[in-house]
Amino acid sequence: MRGMTVLTSRPQTMAEKILSRRGDQTVYAGDLAVVDVDQVMVVDSIAQSFIERMQRDLNAVPKYPERVSIVIDHVAPASTVSVAQAQKEAREYAAQTGVRLFDVGRGICHQVLVEENLARPGWIVLGSDSHSTTYGAVAAFGSGMGATDIALAAASGKTWLKVPESVKVSFTGELRPGVTAKDVALEMIRVLGADGATYQSIEMHAGDRFTRGERMTLANLCVEAGAKAGLVVPGGEILTSYGYDVPEWVYPDEGATYVREITVDLTALNPRMSAPSEVDNVHDVAELRGLKVDQVFIGTCTNGRIEDLHAAADVLRDRRVNPQTRLLVIPASSQVMEEAMVDGTLLTLQRAGAVLGTPGCGPCMGRHQGVLAPGEVCVSTSNRNFIGRMGDKDAKIYLASPAVAAATAVMGQIALPADLPEAVA
Amino acid sequence: MRGMTVLTSRPQTMAEKILSRRGDQTVYAGDLAVVDVDQVMVVDSIAQSFIERMQRDLNAVPKYPERVSIVIDHVAPASTVSVAQAQKEAREYAAQTGVRLFDVGRGICHQVLVEENLARPGWIVLGSDSHSTTYGAVAAFGSGMGATDIALAAASGKTWLKVPESVKVSFTGELRPGVTAKDVALEMIRVLGADGATYQSIEMHAGDRFTRGERMTLANLCVEAGAKAGLVVPGGEILTSYGYDVPEWVYPDEGATYVREITVDLTALNPRMSAPSEVDNVHDVAELRGLKVDQVFIGTCTNGRIEDLHAAADVLRDRRVNPQTRLLVIPASSQVMEEAMVDGTLLTLQRAGAVLGTPGCGPCMGRHQGVLAPGEVCVSTSNRNFIGRMGDKDAKIYLASPAVAAATAVMGQIALPADLPEAVA
Repeated sequence: MRGMTVLTSRPQTMAEKILSRRGDQTVYAGDLAVVDVDQVMVVDSIAQSFIERMQRDLNAVPKYPERVSIVIDHVAPASTVSVAQAQKEAREYAAQTGVRLFDVGRGICHQVLVEENLARPGWIVLGSDSHSTTYGAVAAFGSGMGATDIALAAASGKTWLKVPESVKVSFTGELRPGVTAKDVALEMIRVLGADGATYQSIEMHAGDRFTRGERMTLANLCVEAGAKAGLVVPGGEILTSYGYDVPEWVYPDEGATYVREITVDLTALNPRMSAPSEVDNVHDVAELRGLKVDQVFIGTCTNGRIEDLHAAADVLRDRRVNPQTRLLVIPASSQVMEEAMVDGTLLTLQRAGAVLGTPGCGPCMGRHQGVLAPGEVCVSTSNRNFIGRMGDKDAKIYLASPAVAAATAVMGQIALPADLPEAVA
Repeated sequence: MRGMTVLTSRPQTMAEKILSRRGDQTVYAGDLAVVDVDQVMVVDSIAQSFIERMQRDLNAVPKYPERVSIVIDHVAPASTVSVAQAQKEAREYAAQTGVRLFDVGRGICHQVLVEENLARPGWIVLGSDSHSTTYGAVAAFGSGMGATDIALAAASGKTWLKVPESVKVSFTGELRPGVTAKDVALEMIRVLGADGATYQSIEMHAGDRFTRGERMTLANLCVEAGAKAGLVVPGGEILTSYGYDVPEWVYPDEGATYVREITVDLTALNPRMSAPSEVDNVHDVAELRGLKVDQVFIGTCTNGRIEDLHAAADVLRDRRVNPQTRLLVIPASSQVMEEAMVDGTLLTLQRAGAVLGTPGCGPCMGRHQGVLAPGEVCVSTSNRNFIGRMGDKDAKIYLASPAVAAATAVMGQIALPADLPEAVA
């Protein structure tokens, strides 16, 4: 169907545009769409279920092996024999079927797919990870699904879904220094609420604001409002500056129908923080200042990119992590790791006392590499602060930007960069 | 007792010298010695037992807090809630009692103690890790003990032990290029046998051969022959060049009594490898060449030092890890990590496709960060290849030097550096 002209009778949202173009008819919110899938992404922790669905339930092979990627990122390197066995089976499956494999250390699925140009404007990308909304950063309809749906998509090259309603998010003003896309994302989730956009597409009209990485942070968090997709409208030259070909048909129409419209005033925004144990429990960092913190984690598909490490390094340069606090820094991918080595960022972090880890998801979902003990407090740049998410159910997780996380690591308590004493070279 | 002159009636081995000097009488093999302990080292995985012994069984606090170090290295960062809880208790105990704590990411216990100058010529260092023989590299009597003995030493400042008999190891000739201290150590274990020096002190007369790091590799492996200690006689200017004060009384006497004397001809030695599943099952690498390898691990207290990373980088420069093989590189300490960042070694490894991990023990004992699946084959620079050591009981571990490990990673099968095609910049 690619390249076919879809005649629309009334204006469409970005989600409706993509799902019409990649399907065989013009669709609107509430319609059922059967669409081509450009990339199916399977993570290590789902790989065994996926393979079982493919081989036992569907008795099928991937219809387009080049459209399937397996990424070993959630527990990498393997922490137990059963994890190691699952990863071994994933490798063997990839070798047998010709699907792509990104092995231990390559990085977090969403980051890797974007780096590898396996998510592009107008594409449909299904992932076995809930934060597959991230692909909306590059104007791809990205969505998370379970092993069965993913397997059906891999076997048939298509998926079916109800076309989501859309929420329009507009931005006014400009961010003040020290306020970041993460703060915008948290504020957006606060306004929408943790289930405020359930099965909807959050369409972010960002104009020429936000880099690709910042757009990934925004789109990534959309699932925390329950969204099916989080689409950042390609604006200005942002995406083309990264080499993307942005088709005209991907843009939403003037006059499209939205179930809700919200505006985030960037100028008014302060550094924000999600307090336990829901992502929409958002406060100004200043309100939470002073709470003792045991562990700080900078990384994940939300905030483990080179610009995030730069922001952390700017705070940590010529400073030291508080001896009462552990700072884990886990680059989102091997490419990020290498960039940070080349430009000296990694050395700055290391000298400040950061503990570096293998590119991947790290302790984000509490399966290894920094699991929290009962009673511990963590400030994390990740996307979920649910009870038990990073380990014990009596641990507390606060979500923030890399700059706030770094300042917190230096102070040993929740802090803003402005709270820090002068750095001493 | 420190500084007291011990009058000896007959010549003593190095172990007899140290145990006499640090005790209150002149002792010989077979005697019971009660000695001052200069440093007690407790690793994370033993910390809970140690604390329980101290508090519940002995109702004691460390007599000399500055002589006790807790190192969080075996499973760091924490992989489970129970591991995290144990580490939390270790931190709290250190804060309460004033003992030293080296937290997540500082590195492997033995490496850290040597870097921190907490093992010195003539000292007695007891560790809760079997490879505490490593301290013999700096002419300290280092030995591994269980939680109860360690706790008694921490509570009293002393320990008692039967003075071990000694085995004298001499070296002739010089190593050929590409042959390393690891190969010497493996050969020594082969000659002695896996239980060939049980409860003995292996006294290595190295002259002015071997750097401090190489001496650590040699002393580290001694426990694989069952040794109580592995003492490298300080020769030439080696130790003083690192700033150590080497007392005259630490040297063994001419004419001391040895239960066995062996000589390793360095000139005749080829790169060696321990095949599964005993350390003394040692072969020339050339004999094992060609076996497909799933994982290569460069790191550990045996071979995770800067010179080991240099050796690996020399092989990996302008080459790529085989896509069928994973290469994990875990520096032995944060200091090694930083040195490797500064001198470009880390970037060379990263560009070759190595997967870097947090300084610590890594997958050495199969508890996280690279556990092996059934049927997998690993070449490791570590010190144990026992059944199940790194994960599943049906995985196979081969022990080798960093250069051989790196060559194996490039070829995807057991290989020597000389087997590699020319590197392409």
